[in-house]
Formats: sequence, C-alpha cells, structure tokens
Amino acid sequence: MTKHPTHPAGWSDRLRVSSPVDLSAIDTSATPGVLDKDAAEEIFDGTSRSLPKLQEKLFADSLFGGEHSVLVVLQGMDTAGKGGTVKRVAGPMDPQGITHHAFKKPTEEELAHPFLWRVEKELPAPGQICFFDRSHYEDVLVPRVHELISSEELTARYAEINEFERRLVEGGTTVLKVMLHLGRDEQKNRLLRRLDRSDKHWKFNPGDVDDRGLWPLFHDAYEVALTQTDTEHAPWHVVPADKKWYSSLAVQQILNEALQGLDLGWPAADYDVDEQRKRLLAT
Amino acid sequence: MTKHPTHPAGWSDRLRVSSPVDLSAIDTSATPGVLDKDAAEEIFDGTSRSLPKLQEKLFADSLFGGEHSVLVVLQGMDTAGKGGTVKRVAGPMDPQGITHHAFKKPTEEELAHPFLWRVEKELPAPGQICFFDRSHYEDVLVPRVHELISSEELTARYAEINEFERRLVEGGTTVLKVMLHLGRDEQKNRLLRRLDRSDKHWKFNPGDVDDRGLWPLFHDAYEVALTQTDTEHAPWHVVPADKKWYSSLAVQQILNEALQGLDLGWPAADYDVDEQRKRLLAT
Repeated sequence: MTKHPTHPAGWSDRLRVSSPVDLSAIDTSATPGVLDKDAAEEIFDGTSRSLPKLQEKLFADSLFGGEHSVLVVLQGMDTAGKGGTVKRVAGPMDPQGITHHAFKKPTEEELAHPFLWRVEKELPAPGQICFFDRSHYEDVLVPRVHELISSEELTARYAEINEFERRLVEGGTTVLKVMLHLGRDEQKNRLLRRLDRSDKHWKFNPGDVDDRGLWPLFHDAYEVALTQTDTEHAPWHVVPADKKWYSSLAVQQILNEALQGLDLGWPAADYDVDEQRKRLLAT
Repeated sequence: MTKHPTHPAGWSDRLRVSSPVDLSAIDTSATPGVLDKDAAEEIFDGTSRSLPKLQEKLFADSLFGGEHSVLVVLQGMDTAGKGGTVKRVAGPMDPQGITHHAFKKPTEEELAHPFLWRVEKELPAPGQICFFDRSHYEDVLVPRVHELISSEELTARYAEINEFERRLVEGGTTVLKVMLHLGRDEQKNRLLRRLDRSDKHWKFNPGDVDDRGLWPLFHDAYEVALTQTDTEHAPWHVVPADKKWYSSLAVQQILNEALQGLDLGWPAADYDVDEQRKRLLAT
C-alpha cells in the first residue's frame, strides 16, 4: 500500500531533486507514491474537496494582515501538461484566490528590461495562490540552448534567481518549483494528437517540431538550471509527466502539503460577536 | 415545463430590466425560468460541462487575432452572493482564461485618479472572461447614498459610464451587467449565519449592519443607476438572489448565451497539417 495520502511532506520529499540533477535517471513514466490511476484519482478527488478550505484560510488570513502567499512555478517541454495541470489542480478552488500567468516569448518591451521585470509584475499578493506556466527559468533555459548570452551572464542569472526567490520567501511567499518531466516519445504522441484533431490544430506550432531537435540541449539546460537553483528556501521537484493523472496528482499534493505546513486557523473576530448579533437582530 | 435550457437569448431576455427600473416590483425569492432546485441543478450541471468548450474557443480565437472578450459585472448588497456566484460559474472553466477582480473601498491613490482609472487596469484581454465583484457602479452608488458628490457630477458619471462601456463593446468586449437582487430579510439570515460560525467570522464586518440602515437609499441609488445605464450595448439584468442555486444558474445562463452568440469555431490551421505530421514522424 501507498503511504497515507495526506502524510505531511511525503510528496514534496519524494519528488525533490538531488544534486547534481540527472534527468536521464528519472523515469518519465514512473508513478512514485501511488499504485495506479484509480488510486491516484481517489487521492486527487479527496484533496480536491479539502484544498478549497485551506485556500480560504490563506485568503482570510491575508485580510487580517497575514502575508502568506504561494507561487507554483511549472516548467517543462511543450505538451508536458503545464496548462492542464493548473486547470485540474486549481479547478476546485475559488477563482478569487487564484492567479495564473502563462509566460510567452518575451516582447520587445520585456527584453528592454532586466529579465525579472516581467515576473515581478505577476507575483502573488498576500492570500493568493499563483501559478506560473513557464517563468523566469525560460530566461536561463532558452539563452543557454540558443547561446544568446555568455556563460558568465548565465551564472549571474542563476545567482540572481536564487537571491530573488530568497526575497520572495522572506516576504511570505512559499515558492514551489516543479519540472514536469516528459518523455520524448510521449511528446511525439501528444503532438500527433494535436494534428489529428481539428479542434486541437490551434495548439500546434511548427516550431514545436524544430524544438524536438534541440531536446538534448534543453535537457542539459534543465539539469544545470535545476542544479544551480535548487535551494533550501525554494527547492525543485521533478515530476514524471508521461501520465497526466500522475503529474496532476503530484503537483496537487505538493501544493496541499505546503498549505498544510502553513498551519493557518480561521482569523478570530475583531469585534464582539454577541453585541453584533443584538445590533443585527434589531434591524 | 420550462423552456429548452439552451434556448438562445432566453435567460438574458427574461431577466433584462425594463425602464424605469422598479426593484420593489421584482420578487427577490422568485425563480423565473425554472421550476425548482432540482431542475436548476440539472441545467447548471449540463452547462458546466459545455461551457469550458465555449471558453476554450474564445481563448483559441484570441491567439489567432480575435478580439473578443467578456466582462461580467456583478453588483449587489452585502451577502448577495457575488463571490459565490463567480466561484460556481467559473469553477469548471480553465483558470487560464478567467480573471476576477473584487473592487474594495477605493484607496487614496485610486481616489486621486478619475473613477474609471482603477477599472481600466482590470479589463479583460482578448480571449478572457473577466468577473467584476463590484465595479465602477460603486462610484455612482456610494456617492449618491452618502451624498459625496453633486447631482450634476452623478449625472456626468452615468454618461461617462455609458460612453466607457460603448468603447469596450466596440473594442470586442461583451459587457454583461447583473444586479443580484437580495431580500432584506434574507440578508439578515446570511449575516446571522456568519456570526454563528467561527469559520465565517472573518467575513462579517460591523459596517454591514450600519449599511442595512441605508437599505432604502441604496435601493434608490440602484434604481437610478440601472435606469441611467441600461443601454442596448450593455444591458442590465436583475437576478432574484434569495436562492443561491437560482442566482448562480441565471448568471451562468446569461454568460452561456453570450458565448453562444459569438458563434466562434475552432481556428483553422495556418500550416500544412500533413506536412507537419511527416516532419514530426521523422523526429
């Protein structure tokens, strides 16, 4: 049998990377921590019912001066399931407490600013859970693969990211970083399915095929980036992503453990409840 | 029997205000268009399954140059169910295509700007469905009730709002305005429940009791505002809100009809599908 589904720190510990990161040693079709799809869906559905209460506590806490927020950073190759994971994990929660930002190829304006500029603008306010579909990590992955900046500049960016995330954490943001680790064959299947269905054609981009040729270079770039930026304050997790039911579950559980770890209660009334009841009944 | 649930324009027409608006003539506990809770939930669940596809089409369309977006403006007295309605209606849709903004009492910075300044910043981008929990209408309701500005200024604001919304609509935004019309007794019940449960105390504000004393003034302000700003391009709907299952259904159906009205298909591939399949298979 698997561990108790809500075992504190279980999923986060299980999927935490160890340094130096070697992606080839992590099976993209594995399902560590859960037996099969049925078991996964049972845990997923149970947590989908309890997660909104934890989210509501985070939100309520912020109205009474609490500074906690959560940032979930999702990285992965095309079709790794970043958007779908947000949809499944965030679905049951109140949209009022969720923000989501998908980072695209930087615009001219964004390129004219330091690389963290566009990221700063999307950070979660207190009480919010924010999902990044791609992130500031694109700015160390793409430049390395396409040799857009020098290795000194890359090294400086890793350090800048670590410092940036340290400030976030000190300011009350829990930073959860997840790489959805997809197999190359499974990516081909997913891209083929987009070509097979006319209602999915809009999701396909011929550039995705070009990027497949750069697969080994992207993997190298991920390994270096994850190794350089896996910190105690903002650790990296690698989630096998060939099975969507598994990757959604893993991200949900990592988020759930983090929210449980905040150990928030309901804010106490800052007024006299009986007095207010009397006033209200008199109206 | 009720009309076919997806009858085009059925819900929007049924709940559209007629001028001049007389709120006292609209029963807050009525459920026009549906027989009972069971029937309502059946329609609601069915539309919850089909709505995400319409949303996805709106989103996909925007990636290929489409400029459509949707703005749902929710107004209503405290506890009218604005937040809960967003949660239920938006829940099944992809967070990627949803934005939500709850407008609070204006800050010093916001007050130093024209009243539409803070609203402009939260407008939906193409492809997005945006929910406003309160809105620019607070800036004609509160000032009228508390006599903060002259009647000439108020009149100017109604005109400014009409012009503002006309520009939005011309730019591709469908503007859906809904007042959740709550009964005064039902509000008392809802406020009492917040006092009865310690996990709801954070939602209670002693000022809510003070505002109950201003109930008739707020109703007057709503009647004038709705009458002055009910336009062909951005009509007002009044939704009876004593029953949450009804108000959620009504807002969902108004949104659903608007999305169906856009009549969007899936974007056609702007590449040669067979050629891309060959390229992909060769990788």
